[in-house]
Amino acid sequence: MAPVLDRPRVLERSRELVEPALRAAVGELHPWPRRMASYALGWCDADGVPLPGGGGKGVRPALVVLGTEAVGVAAEHAVPAAVAVELVHTFSLVHDDVMDGDERRRHRASAWQAFGTGPAVLAGDALFALAVETLAGGGRHGAAAVRRVGAALRELVAGQADDLLFEDRPWTGPEAVAVAEYEAMAAGKTGSLLACALALGPVLGGAPAPLVEVLARAGRELGTAFQAVDDLLGIWGDPAATGKPVLADLVRGKKTLPVLAALAAGTAASRRLAVLLGAGTALDPATAAEAAVLVEEAGGRQFALDRARGCADAAREYFTHAPFRQEVVGELLELTDFLVDRRL
Amino acid sequence: MAPVLDRPRVLERSRELVEPALRAAVGELHPWPRRMASYALGWCDADGVPLPGGGGKGVRPALVVLGTEAVGVAAEHAVPAAVAVELVHTFSLVHDDVMDGDERRRHRASAWQAFGTGPAVLAGDALFALAVETLAGGGRHGAAAVRRVGAALRELVAGQADDLLFEDRPWTGPEAVAVAEYEAMAAGKTGSLLACALALGPVLGGAPAPLVEVLARAGRELGTAFQAVDDLLGIWGDPAATGKPVLADLVRGKKTLPVLAALAAGTAASRRLAVLLGAGTALDPATAAEAAVLVEEAGGRQFALDRARGCADAAREYFTHAPFRQEVVGELLELTDFLVDRRL
Repeated sequence: MAPVLDRPRVLERSRELVEPALRAAVGELHPWPRRMASYALGWCDADGVPLPGGGGKGVRPALVVLGTEAVGVAAEHAVPAAVAVELVHTFSLVHDDVMDGDERRRHRASAWQAFGTGPAVLAGDALFALAVETLAGGGRHGAAAVRRVGAALRELVAGQADDLLFEDRPWTGPEAVAVAEYEAMAAGKTGSLLACALALGPVLGGAPAPLVEVLARAGRELGTAFQAVDDLLGIWGDPAATGKPVLADLVRGKKTLPVLAALAAGTAASRRLAVLLGAGTALDPATAAEAAVLVEEAGGRQFALDRARGCADAAREYFTHAPFRQEVVGELLELTDFLVDRRL
Repeated sequence: MAPVLDRPRVLERSRELVEPALRAAVGELHPWPRRMASYALGWCDADGVPLPGGGGKGVRPALVVLGTEAVGVAAEHAVPAAVAVELVHTFSLVHDDVMDGDERRRHRASAWQAFGTGPAVLAGDALFALAVETLAGGGRHGAAAVRRVGAALRELVAGQADDLLFEDRPWTGPEAVAVAEYEAMAAGKTGSLLACALALGPVLGGAPAPLVEVLARAGRELGTAFQAVDDLLGIWGDPAATGKPVLADLVRGKKTLPVLAALAAGTAASRRLAVLLGAGTALDPATAAEAAVLVEEAGGRQFALDRARGCADAAREYFTHAPFRQEVVGELLELTDFLVDRRL
């Protein structure tokens, strides 16, 4: 286990820069979707009562700010880009929770649990519309920025579609989900939006295409790393930190990287794991605990750890080998460490 | 009853112009959302088997084409605008059916009934992402076009939010839904997208703002007229034509213009109607039939008819008193007749 790292200062800095504009944008919504959007953003409870210090970690706005600063584009472009990315991210969480039936999010009821399925769908739509409107108003390169967000969302939808389809596939045999297929899904579902976050400010500011593409690639690697970390936390994470029950993903029978890698390893533990999972029903806590041990024995935990660290290293390579502003590279590396290593 | 009018030729013309690009855009999607999107567009059944001559009436693409031609902007701008409008319209139908719990759409199972709620949410998201991407790729004025669609969608969401909130309001008393509130909702829910349809090609082609605004206003009037017609058909429409059960909106206790106008009229029939509706449960067919008679006696049917015709006249005024191309104005008037009078 790596030591817990300090919270990178860019998280606070980008929040101060972006949040006023984000709140102003959400304030444009009809009162009801506005309430639901504010809830999903962590700003208030389900009755609309403000919550102090709410909100997510703010990783995506921080990536937007650093991406913009890295290429030396005017900081004003970071704000609409960061607002749009945070709105799209929140939209995708709200709709994904509907699709996946997830009842908890950030230690609270998910939006559809708090407001109902139909209203949550509406809240997501409102967030996405707002994202697009914000970005399209972002000046001369607004259309290019919207195209990038549209393309990222199309990838995100494709990833989510695969994720839903994986649920009905068997754990073993020729129809089983291959590790490579899983990683392509994760790249779409998580990588596309992080790639967009790093690239969007530069796109809005008209930065040179090669620099934009390096940032996008680094973001994609970060996303894959981030998803692997999430998968590890879904099994071995501390419920107090994740806000999810212990062994959550195993109990639900969710196909994640450590489990798929363990099954594909072909060891004795892989075969015993396949028998446990093959029953096709939700695992009881004792069986889930047994399965977690087998995933580890078959090398699945290590595989996912290596993947997270490998992708983070790839992102670091991109950050350090392109002509980015040196002081910003330091912050990008710090944020990478925070994202990937902090809880492993 | 007006005689049934011929199908305006612009519907066929615009379909031929727009459909290849629409199919190419949908073809970009992941196979699963592509299948669901194609189903929602009426192109195939739930198993993906193509349906001959499927699809809606194509009113919105026709409005885009005529709006573009009316201001003399190059026809090439009509295509991405029409594709985007049709995608946004289909997205809104798919999500609205989830929110409203509507099980039927165009004589078939609605998308969420055919594929499940989560997948239908995903299909809608995919359609919207594609709309935005298409439009943002539409050239020099792409950002302005995206802003307009984003704003229209925000209005649409606000209208849908009001519509959902109206469900929980009483039929009578100080909390009752006023006719004016209802009409504001309808303007958001239906008017915003028709306004966008007429204006979007000209926006994409960089037409003068005053002409764009006249078209948008005309579209808003058309939308209000269209919604009033829909409300009339929801009670008195022929199930064979509407694809919905007889007296559908009364049986469901849906708040629509004829009913709200009848209740607000203060006649003896209004009071008897209030008693029938006030029970707060779904109406049985016999009671619904009785309620329909009372709505008519209290003047609600006539009110909605007058509203539909008045808004259509307002749209005609806009079409005929602006410097639009004369031959296109004829087609706009023909389409207006078709939209509003054909089934009344």
